[in-house]
Amino acid sequence: MAVIDELTAEFARLPGIGRKTATRLTYYLLKRPPEDVRRLARALDAVADRVHACGTCGNLSEVSPCEYCTNPRRDRSILCVVEEAVDINAIERTGEYRGLYHVLGGRLSPLEGIGPAELNLQSLLARLGNGGNVREVIVATNPSVEGEATALYLQKLIQPLGVRVTRLARGLPVGGDLEYADGVTIAEALAGRREI
Amino acid sequence: MAVIDELTAEFARLPGIGRKTATRLTYYLLKRPPEDVRRLARALDAVADRVHACGTCGNLSEVSPCEYCTNPRRDRSILCVVEEAVDINAIERTGEYRGLYHVLGGRLSPLEGIGPAELNLQSLLARLGNGGNVREVIVATNPSVEGEATALYLQKLIQPLGVRVTRLARGLPVGGDLEYADGVTIAEALAGRREI
Repeated sequence: MAVIDELTAEFARLPGIGRKTATRLTYYLLKRPPEDVRRLARALDAVADRVHACGTCGNLSEVSPCEYCTNPRRDRSILCVVEEAVDINAIERTGEYRGLYHVLGGRLSPLEGIGPAELNLQSLLARLGNGGNVREVIVATNPSVEGEATALYLQKLIQPLGVRVTRLARGLPVGGDLEYADGVTIAEALAGRREI
Repeated sequence: MAVIDELTAEFARLPGIGRKTATRLTYYLLKRPPEDVRRLARALDAVADRVHACGTCGNLSEVSPCEYCTNPRRDRSILCVVEEAVDINAIERTGEYRGLYHVLGGRLSPLEGIGPAELNLQSLLARLGNGGNVREVIVATNPSVEGEATALYLQKLIQPLGVRVTRLARGLPVGGDLEYADGVTIAEALAGRREI
């Protein structure tokens, strides 16, 4: 196979990139100076060589334990449990959270054959068990059916250890429109209403 | 900058890929085996190292002259002029064209500072000049304002050489809907109407 077709095929393997977009990306790069193309190749190699899961929390990092786990300024009494390492970025972007993280590596999904054994639960229990430093676990799984099921499972697993288990609030997204919000979200917003 | 952020930044440089998509691609690759990531890196290196413009027609290829220019089964009396090398794929996919190609490397666009000197016109004239093998030039520039201007320019340039100049038909796209076709397209379809 010609190298142009090979690169197009590789791009087409990426999620959300179909045949046409892959071709467009390939020909875009063909018009760029070769240094630009090689810079992308080097960035890929660096990620393949140097990024690994943190042995403590499962975050993807160049060091293990990762920068959150070793940061002395983070609050070690709170753990935020997320499905994937990418979710950490979303929470960090708020600038409102100063605790530690734990990455499950997925969510419970019987249909996809993902049960408790497929998630990083042993390491989570280990962190909650020894010393008893952690006072609260914030479950930040996605607001999907599987994410909810995972949150409930975690609650049943962790509460007996005497650790507080909370989850992110459900409600209307800021800047959203009541008219276009789905019924379940409005119901959650009603149930979770607060004094002004 | 951490290698994860570097890769995300590189992805975000690609056309049509914003910050969120770039992050999604990066974390998708982080979940793949490192071999998959390296295979994409190798495909990029191969393209950077081995793909160059064909010295005859301007097509992007690993060999020069390219596979079309050297193919003894292609009709050397017809040249199809396209804006970019990627357009050759679109025409080849029809399986209806057996002539040769010529890649302009763009289209006339005074607003972007692209004049005749920026296009591969000298090499086109050279191909039409010596020997006089070429009988017809099919102008397959895009049906945009710039593409049309380029087609007119080519016609004025080539016709004095005694070579027939044609362009791709304008009209309703097959499978399209008259109701949703724009007025200019319908006008072109009317002007180019044919006996059934």
